[in-house]
Amino acid sequence: MSLLVVGSVAFDSVKTPFGEVEEAQGGSAFYFSLAAGFFNDIQMVAVVGEDFPEEQIDLLNERNVDTEGLQRVPGKTFRWKGEYTYELNEAHTLDTQLNVFESFSPEIPETYRDARYVFLGNIDPELQMKVLWQVRNPEFVGLDTMNFWIGGKREALIEALKHVDMLTINDAEARQLTEEVNLVQAARKIHTYGPKILIIKQGEYGVLMFNGSKIFSAPAYPLDAVFDPTGAGDSFAGGMMGYLSNVQNINDETLRRAIIFGSVMASYNVEDFSVKRLCEISYRDIEKRFKMFKSLTHFEDL
Amino acid sequence: MSLLVVGSVAFDSVKTPFGEVEEAQGGSAFYFSLAAGFFNDIQMVAVVGEDFPEEQIDLLNERNVDTEGLQRVPGKTFRWKGEYTYELNEAHTLDTQLNVFESFSPEIPETYRDARYVFLGNIDPELQMKVLWQVRNPEFVGLDTMNFWIGGKREALIEALKHVDMLTINDAEARQLTEEVNLVQAARKIHTYGPKILIIKQGEYGVLMFNGSKIFSAPAYPLDAVFDPTGAGDSFAGGMMGYLSNVQNINDETLRRAIIFGSVMASYNVEDFSVKRLCEISYRDIEKRFKMFKSLTHFEDL
Repeated sequence: MSLLVVGSVAFDSVKTPFGEVEEAQGGSAFYFSLAAGFFNDIQMVAVVGEDFPEEQIDLLNERNVDTEGLQRVPGKTFRWKGEYTYELNEAHTLDTQLNVFESFSPEIPETYRDARYVFLGNIDPELQMKVLWQVRNPEFVGLDTMNFWIGGKREALIEALKHVDMLTINDAEARQLTEEVNLVQAARKIHTYGPKILIIKQGEYGVLMFNGSKIFSAPAYPLDAVFDPTGAGDSFAGGMMGYLSNVQNINDETLRRAIIFGSVMASYNVEDFSVKRLCEISYRDIEKRFKMFKSLTHFEDL
Repeated sequence: MSLLVVGSVAFDSVKTPFGEVEEAQGGSAFYFSLAAGFFNDIQMVAVVGEDFPEEQIDLLNERNVDTEGLQRVPGKTFRWKGEYTYELNEAHTLDTQLNVFESFSPEIPETYRDARYVFLGNIDPELQMKVLWQVRNPEFVGLDTMNFWIGGKREALIEALKHVDMLTINDAEARQLTEEVNLVQAARKIHTYGPKILIIKQGEYGVLMFNGSKIFSAPAYPLDAVFDPTGAGDSFAGGMMGYLSNVQNINDETLRRAIIFGSVMASYNVEDFSVKRLCEISYRDIEKRFKMFKSLTHFEDL
């Protein structure tokens, strides 16, 4: 059963203390799909301009990503320029050019309308809903968002949250959304907005999942070189949703494993610029690092 | 086999967004001992002035803490005044009065000289060494320090590190000590200074242990109310060293469990001001929360 994702496809120019890239492939749907494609067939809904290279679309197709829903329209592809300092936890946006994204109106192909697993990547919540309404009978819907939409499109976002099963968000955004400092209390509030499952991303510190009253904590893998954090959240979501849509069984146990698969994908993603590492690794590498997460966190019970 | 600790005993005046206390009992040796006393007999080396209440010494004695090494000298007890904002991760020191601590010269009683487990709490590294040299044949030595000593007593600290098995430190301090941004690389450098085991404390995000090339990550328990973080690091170290000195067997497995016991003690400690919660709980509560840590972190391996 395939997994539908809507999000951005972009050219990212990124500078970190370890180097820089100009106009490398990126965007939430791009990172998500390449990570999720290890686990399942992906249906991608996004938009690019005339300048987007055909070979990148071939790359997606080779990696289990159906691009029938990827619109190519006149104009230039979305561009983002950002910089990270040594802390690496927060991107400083230097420039954003929406370009073809400005007038993007997602229309999903007929073949996508029966998708049961849907991930609404980090774009305008009104566009996220426009996609969701075109899916006939979704079984499990995840949504990602950010401070920009919490501040600027709060009402649309709160409306959207009524219709999703899982929200992924970082800790500062969880606080901003709920006006609660304490994350346990923020989680309780977010449950009342709709999502039964809340994933709080904490960058280099890992992830917290609030599944009703059950809490799961997973660390980020301590790497000896983090090159570029761009796309870490998207490849995390890709690994997580990819695994869940593959096992087709959502419960506390599969959610915990999904979070580890997501953390594995994010940990590889940050080891190089753009999607370079995601294109180098094999499923065996994913399993290997999954086991490393086990030994990283295991202790004997009483 | 008992556990010797040297550190401060203090009156703390603390203000958090949730309330404040004036001149409550605190100090690194005080928090450490009350936490460690759940696991083993403790020998405390510290100094107080004439104003320190006898009933607090009775409290220590009732909780397995031998106070023969607690000097009472003319003058006033060490005082610290600090404030936490909503973030709760960093204390802002408003006032420090060293008082009797200024001329503290630790002399350990003959009965303490055969201690096999030693914890050198966060004080001047020269005083830490002065204590260690009086112990005949220590088996396992832990040392805690802070930015103040890394900046002001760097040479003495580097010398001290040659003689300890385990260093506990927070992430900013690990970076400051090694001038490495990446924690894995910082850990490698610290191993070359002496300590085979490095515990990096990350506040609300938990703890990382570097045991040679093995890494263990433990979260902090997500509490729905954190009242006062003062003493969290000391009660963590107390739980950890208390457990290790009780099992008398240091290996990767016991170290991981020790970290969880430490995290349990820290999680109780922050639920109220001063040592109030540490005085309320029983060993059964500790076991109960240990099991909660297991369910917080557990996932099925592949």
